[in-house]
Parts: sequence; structure tokens; C-alpha cells
Amino acid sequence: MAAGKPWSEGNVFLSGIQPSGQAHLGNYFGAIRQHLVSQDEAGEHFYFIADLHALTTSRDPEALRENVVDVAVTYLALGLDPERAVLFRQSDVPEVTEIQWLLACVTGMGLLERAHSYKDKLAHGVKPSVGLFTYPILMAADILAYDASVVPVGKDQKQHVEMAQDMAQSFNARYGASVEGGEVFRRPEGRLPAAELFAKVPGVDGEKMSKTYGNTIWIFEEGKKLKKAVGRILTDSREPAEPKDPAGVLLLDFLALFLDEPELADWRERVRAGGPDAPGYGHLKVRLVEAMDAAFGPARERRLELLADRGELEAVLRRGAEVARERASCTLDRAYRAAGIR
Amino acid sequence: MAAGKPWSEGNVFLSGIQPSGQAHLGNYFGAIRQHLVSQDEAGEHFYFIADLHALTTSRDPEALRENVVDVAVTYLALGLDPERAVLFRQSDVPEVTEIQWLLACVTGMGLLERAHSYKDKLAHGVKPSVGLFTYPILMAADILAYDASVVPVGKDQKQHVEMAQDMAQSFNARYGASVEGGEVFRRPEGRLPAAELFAKVPGVDGEKMSKTYGNTIWIFEEGKKLKKAVGRILTDSREPAEPKDPAGVLLLDFLALFLDEPELADWRERVRAGGPDAPGYGHLKVRLVEAMDAAFGPARERRLELLADRGELEAVLRRGAEVARERASCTLDRAYRAAGIR
Repeated sequence: MAAGKPWSEGNVFLSGIQPSGQAHLGNYFGAIRQHLVSQDEAGEHFYFIADLHALTTSRDPEALRENVVDVAVTYLALGLDPERAVLFRQSDVPEVTEIQWLLACVTGMGLLERAHSYKDKLAHGVKPSVGLFTYPILMAADILAYDASVVPVGKDQKQHVEMAQDMAQSFNARYGASVEGGEVFRRPEGRLPAAELFAKVPGVDGEKMSKTYGNTIWIFEEGKKLKKAVGRILTDSREPAEPKDPAGVLLLDFLALFLDEPELADWRERVRAGGPDAPGYGHLKVRLVEAMDAAFGPARERRLELLADRGELEAVLRRGAEVARERASCTLDRAYRAAGIR
Repeated sequence: MAAGKPWSEGNVFLSGIQPSGQAHLGNYFGAIRQHLVSQDEAGEHFYFIADLHALTTSRDPEALRENVVDVAVTYLALGLDPERAVLFRQSDVPEVTEIQWLLACVTGMGLLERAHSYKDKLAHGVKPSVGLFTYPILMAADILAYDASVVPVGKDQKQHVEMAQDMAQSFNARYGASVEGGEVFRRPEGRLPAAELFAKVPGVDGEKMSKTYGNTIWIFEEGKKLKKAVGRILTDSREPAEPKDPAGVLLLDFLALFLDEPELADWRERVRAGGPDAPGYGHLKVRLVEAMDAAFGPARERRLELLADRGELEAVLRRGAEVARERASCTLDRAYRAAGIR
């Protein structure tokens, strides 16, 4: 323990996982890979499945239940190690909603009104619920509950960590006097993915890959269905022999996600050169299917094993919830005492 | 059980108690009396001390802790019977903050923006916190958590019960399909106090009695201090013998809170008539002190006994919390299942 600080000095990593259905390549290269890599760093690792957050948009109870299972299985299949990392459902830690109330009482309306995600929603004519508006407070509570010091995030969520910093600071300023060191909540830092861990993934139509656009490829797709999914990637009617600018060949953007640099450079060069040795779109598609099989094949199998033993999955989530609650209830108790509750 | 409804048919009464410091005559005749009378009606009775709500305004942890004890002791001393009624601290029931999040996700911003109390604060130039803005959702969660059917309220809180009705309806409409009878949350009804249970209490200066104005009389004041407090009630320099309009004699308004109608009419008549038999202000003050001694004397003594045994007080609140949590966790479980959590 650092003098006066109620948390250990080591890093605590926190990743929030959206239960938004089957993970597609955009999810994987935009967030999941970054989340998983962080578990190799020294420190504690908390991964929560944000089922309470999902209620701001979900209206389908069955789908939500399935999505929570799906995303848990996805992370475990891809290598999340429950021996090293704590995986749990957000809703299994009621302390988070209690901390959320404490933070709401020290957060000005202006802070939430300036949230990009909320302003975007308003600009798009969405009639917002209070949940959508106060979402950043619940997210801050998630972060602060576990004394998180590092929060791996994408660019669009960086503001959420900054808001959590603001809320922690406001609470500490108002109520920290009673706590040794003056800090009730630990200041979290957001961490953007290293360049090699992040890629913008196009959809099969060349737009950003997104469920909303219906242009996704599920990472665990296989066999005929995978071929069909890859077959939907936009091409044109130019002949293989025609020299082409590789930047205009969408399939190469997909291959770039999987191939090592020399091989990718080779494919690009052959597309650019054209002539009898140049690959057709069909060749590129075959290579992409192979690459996806190699990248996700073992995880696909682990996924099926996990789905076959729901009891084991539930046990993992329960153990995770126990560990998470132990930490969160310490934090809540500290915050409640500081504020005059208890 | 009514067919399909998860709650029993009997009435459930819920009263929220603000831990806002020593109860004065305005608190007693404006709310406490009404709260206490309801426990004589058939049904279940829940009384929660709103310590989480208090955080929207309190910045003094020690004062909050004391105020919670004070208000618990006040209600018990005045006759709240822990054998018939469940008395507990709001913060001892975490399920309430969880239900609050569920309701936030089905509540439009507009509903909260129309809340009188919020609009008042804005109009007075208060920079509101999110807690102040979302206060009615936490209040709705308090009401709905215990399947309350009757909520004794003052006029200014009537809108809060209406908002709870709206939220219950929104949630039931969105998620009720999975529940027999279609209702996840029971519809609560607000109940304004019967005329004989409500009185507007003037302060010692003739304005509304309020801590803000520093014009209060504590209900448990006694002896010299009580005489001094009553002595502060505004009078003028007219002689006793001078005939006066009783409506202009503030002391008679105070006596009206305590005296039966014949005695009050007699005092009024003698003030109006003037002459040698007319009472001076001093007489009225003596009678008021006597009346307060009679009304609150026994409760004062019980209060001191209760304060002398903090362990017993804590035990009462803990037992209350257990009963309250049992009910609230049933409600939460029902709501979570309906929404696809669990």
C-alpha cells in the first residue's frame, strides 16, 4: 500500500465489453484484441460485460441474455484467461449502481451535456432516455469501483475516461478530507491502442464495418458460410490481368488485417503489376478465408466447447462476480463513509 | 395473491423521511403526523430514511450521520412502532439504486425536465447536479421497490408519485410481456393528507416555518429553552385590554395547532372582546408551552431513552433493512428477468 492510499500501487486494468451480439472483424480489430493483449501486462485485470449499459438501447430481453453469453464465450475462446483475469457481468455488482448515485450528486449537468455521444444522439434526432444521458456516470462508476488505473479504450470512448477523472476529482475534493491521502477514488487513465493493435475495418461494402449497416463478417464464421460472407466483399468487373491501384482493392484491406508485411506487399505488388501472374479477386478471397481459418480456427473450437458446458461458463462468471464485488464493496464502503452514509 | 400479480392485494404504505435535522413544528404538522397516522391502517408499512436523497444537498458527512439518527429517534419517539412498521435507511437497500437504473432507461429526459422541483431550482439560479435532476427516478425506485400502493405525500411531492406512475407504466409497457398479468411494477397512488391531519405552520416571525428562515421551534424543546423559543413568536405592543382581530394574533395560530376547538374559540373570543378579562400575549405563551409539553412531553422522554441505547436503535434499523431488502430484491429480480438481465 502506498502511504495513505487505499489501493495497492500496481496497475489495475479495466475493460468494458458491450454485449452487442456476435463479434465481427470490426469489433475484434477495434477493441477485443486490444482488451485481450492487456491481460499480459503485470497487474490486475477486470473485464465486465456491460449488460446494464445495454439496456439503454436493448428492448429485447431474450437477445440481451444471448448476447451476454455470446460475448463471454467470445472473449474466453479468444484467450481471456479466468485464472489471470476477472470476467463478470456488470449487473452482478450492485455496488456499481450505488457508486453511480454518489457520483451523480457531485456531477454537474453541464459535464454530461458536453458528452460527444449524447450530443451526437441529439443531433441525429434521437429522443434520449435518462439512461442514455447518465450513461457516462454509470461508466465512471464501473471504472472507479475497481480502482482501475488503466482503461484501454478506443478514441470515441476516451472522453468517458476523462469524465470519470472529473467525477473522481469532484468527489475527492468534496469528501476526501476524511480519507488518509485525500483520495476516495483512484484516478484512472485511458489508454488508446498501440498502432499495431488497432485497425479500421471496412465492411463488405467498403463503408465502416458496423451491425447497423449490415456489412459485417462474424469472426467465428466458417466453411461455406464464411466463403459466402467473404464473397460479399465488394469487387468490380476488371480482369485479373489489368494493372490496378492496390488502394482501390477492398479485398487487400481485409488481407492487411491478417497477413504479415512481406506477404501482403507481395499480393499488393502483383495486383499493381497486372499481367498473367496477377491474382484475381477469387484468389484474394481464397487467401482471406484461409487466413481467417488460421486466425480464428482454434478459437472457434474452444467456443463450441464452452457453449456445450453452460454450467462451467456460469461458474466462471460467478467467480468473477465474487472477486469484483469484493473490490467494489471496499470502494463503496470507503465512499459511503466519506460522504456520511454508514 | 391476485391472479397474475406478484404482490399481495393488501395495501402497502410507503413514507419517505428526510434526514434534515431536528424536526420542527412545521415538519410535524406538515408531514410526520400524516406519516404516523397511516400506520394504523390495515396493510404493510415501510418508512425509509432518505439518506441517499440527502446527498443531493448535504456536504457535511457528520451532520448527515447525526440527522439520520435524529430522524429515526424522532419517529420512534413519536410512536412509530417497529413491530407494525418497517423503519430503515434507504442506503441499506442497494436494490433501489439498481431499480433506479432500470427506470432511467425507460424514462425520457422530458419527464424530468418538467419536474417542478427541478424547474424551481433552475429558476432560482441553482447550478443543478445530475443527482438533483435524476432525484425523481431514485424516488420512483423507492416507491416501486416495495410494491407500494399508497404514498402519503404533501402537495409539493404529489408530482413525484405521478412520475413514479409514469415510469412504472413505461417499464411495464416495454417489458411486461414476460410477466403474468403484464405488470412488473405495481402502480402507486399518492395520498394527500386529510384536512384534519395537515396544518400550515407559521414560523416565529409569521413567515412559513422553515430551517432556511431560522424561524423554527423544535418539537422536543423543553423547559427554559422552550419558553425562550415560544417567547420569540412575533407580537406587538398593544395592551391586553385592547380588542384585537384574532386573525392578526400569531400566537393564536400556534395555539390552533394544539387546542381543541372549544378552548381555542374561547381564547379567540376573549382576544377579540378585549377588556379586563382579555389575555395578554404572555398568557397565550404560557398556554402554548403547556400545550407543547402535553403534546410532546412523553415523546421527549422516549427520545432520551432511545438516544441512550444506540445499539437498540441500530438493531431496529437493521431489522428494518432486512425486511425491506427481502421485498426489494424480489421486485428487482422480477424486473431484471423481464428486461433480460439474469
